[in-house]
Amino acid sequence: MGQMPETTIIPLGTASAIPTRERHPSATALLRKGRVLLFDCGEGTQLRFLQAGLKITRIDAVFITHLHGDHYFGLPGLVSTLSMINRADPLTIVGPAGIAEAIATMPGINLDRSTLPVEFIELHETVDRQVVYETDEVFVEARPIEHRTFAAGYRFVERSKPGHLDVERARELGVTDYEDYRALKSGRSIQVDGQTVTPHMVVGPDRPGRSFAYITDTRPCENGRILARSADLVYHEATFTDEHADNAVRTGHSTAREAAEVALHAEAKRLLIGHFSARHADPSLLFEEATDVFKNTEVAEELKRYSL
Amino acid sequence: MGQMPETTIIPLGTASAIPTRERHPSATALLRKGRVLLFDCGEGTQLRFLQAGLKITRIDAVFITHLHGDHYFGLPGLVSTLSMINRADPLTIVGPAGIAEAIATMPGINLDRSTLPVEFIELHETVDRQVVYETDEVFVEARPIEHRTFAAGYRFVERSKPGHLDVERARELGVTDYEDYRALKSGRSIQVDGQTVTPHMVVGPDRPGRSFAYITDTRPCENGRILARSADLVYHEATFTDEHADNAVRTGHSTAREAAEVALHAEAKRLLIGHFSARHADPSLLFEEATDVFKNTEVAEELKRYSL
Repeated sequence: MGQMPETTIIPLGTASAIPTRERHPSATALLRKGRVLLFDCGEGTQLRFLQAGLKITRIDAVFITHLHGDHYFGLPGLVSTLSMINRADPLTIVGPAGIAEAIATMPGINLDRSTLPVEFIELHETVDRQVVYETDEVFVEARPIEHRTFAAGYRFVERSKPGHLDVERARELGVTDYEDYRALKSGRSIQVDGQTVTPHMVVGPDRPGRSFAYITDTRPCENGRILARSADLVYHEATFTDEHADNAVRTGHSTAREAAEVALHAEAKRLLIGHFSARHADPSLLFEEATDVFKNTEVAEELKRYSL
Repeated sequence: MGQMPETTIIPLGTASAIPTRERHPSATALLRKGRVLLFDCGEGTQLRFLQAGLKITRIDAVFITHLHGDHYFGLPGLVSTLSMINRADPLTIVGPAGIAEAIATMPGINLDRSTLPVEFIELHETVDRQVVYETDEVFVEARPIEHRTFAAGYRFVERSKPGHLDVERARELGVTDYEDYRALKSGRSIQVDGQTVTPHMVVGPDRPGRSFAYITDTRPCENGRILARSADLVYHEATFTDEHADNAVRTGHSTAREAAEVALHAEAKRLLIGHFSARHADPSLLFEEATDVFKNTEVAEELKRYSL
């Protein structure tokens, strides 16, 4: 109960609009306790799951950043397959307004006749911050970012856990009962032999949950920095090198350097860069320009597992 | 000019509805003189082109059999990519009525703002036989086949070429002029020294063009046999083994044995079977049951090249 479960990020697609032999359309899986949250679902994502040894049946929610094809054209196939295999768990699909109609009206998809329970949560252009998914242990928030079309960035957060109980100290104070330990950990004081024992006497500070930010496609922006704030891992698009900085402005994307600046200003712990223009088959210059600014940068490698 | 150019069939996806690690959603490329005709376009087809060393820019036409997702969910991505790279050649998309709206209305696709010239040719349920594509050298015809939803099978045909000219015999008859050779080959008689030389005196029989039939998804049916008639190569779905013959009837598919019976009755030269149920990771039983009936059967292997 005390240990944080492992949380792993697996990039499945790190191409920008035009895929290459090595880089697939956008998708990143977050694996925690055997369940998956999926960020973007570019064409072929269900096939990338097979190649990664992951099961699409384990997906609880899909978070689509925006309705450009390279970020959601894998969703019809994913939904169809889950529907055909009669998955019974509910599936949450979060994305910009219009996503429900786009998926539900495609010939070959019959959500009405399917037993797959799909809940669409649509983000409207007026949104500021919206919690789009939550369980007892984690939540995901969305914020608008700055692309040519409406796009949202996401931040996955594990809720903080109570601090560790200093059992030795508690025993010195006469606390020996398991229920009393639980009470103290959950923040309540207890009475022992007429004395009050308060949580702060025996329980360490809250252990903050880990966090992951998924920020693509966008210009570097304030909401990007907010989503990335102190995050354990940030995936930020880095479509271009400095040489094509004007392209980045024109097309609503970021350079690798700009992605690194977001991570730096947000005091993120680690940065993964991806969504590279097809011209950068070799990402070493993107890597160099990012690490100039933020040392703890890695080039997102498809199917590699990154622990939070 | 006399030689037939090579025509090659490359299966890119041979899964049925649910893809596996080894088998991808339906798609088969026909390669001829550096250009491609594409039969079905399941999810990931543009990625399979990269893996096969083929260029999507070379596609002249796409023929979709029916609007189940595993046969066309790769089309939005294919059209988007061709549009983004500003391809100028026209693209013909043939498929059941509804396909134009399904593709053109997807968010992220803006055919109106694209320079890609797309022509949709829609097949209606009342169609009997329809020539859906033709050039000076080849044509493709569609015929309805028997699935749960409206589906079309396709037959690619190279137009026949004139027979070989027997130059020695022509010289014996006094024909020495190149223009006269051309006239005879194109079926006209000529006069030499007051004598009439007719084509049948010096030109062999027409050389029939090669043909390829693409027949999926369907029950074995009369139009399947017509499409496969004397074809050099037939791709026919073979979703199930004999053991699941009732499934084939219920779901509008064929067993491997039924596919072979179609090839046999059509007097086809070679049969490729594919579209296997995900349960048949090992296709050897499908192969056995088909070769029981039609010896010249092969299991369609993805990315392998089959010459007509």
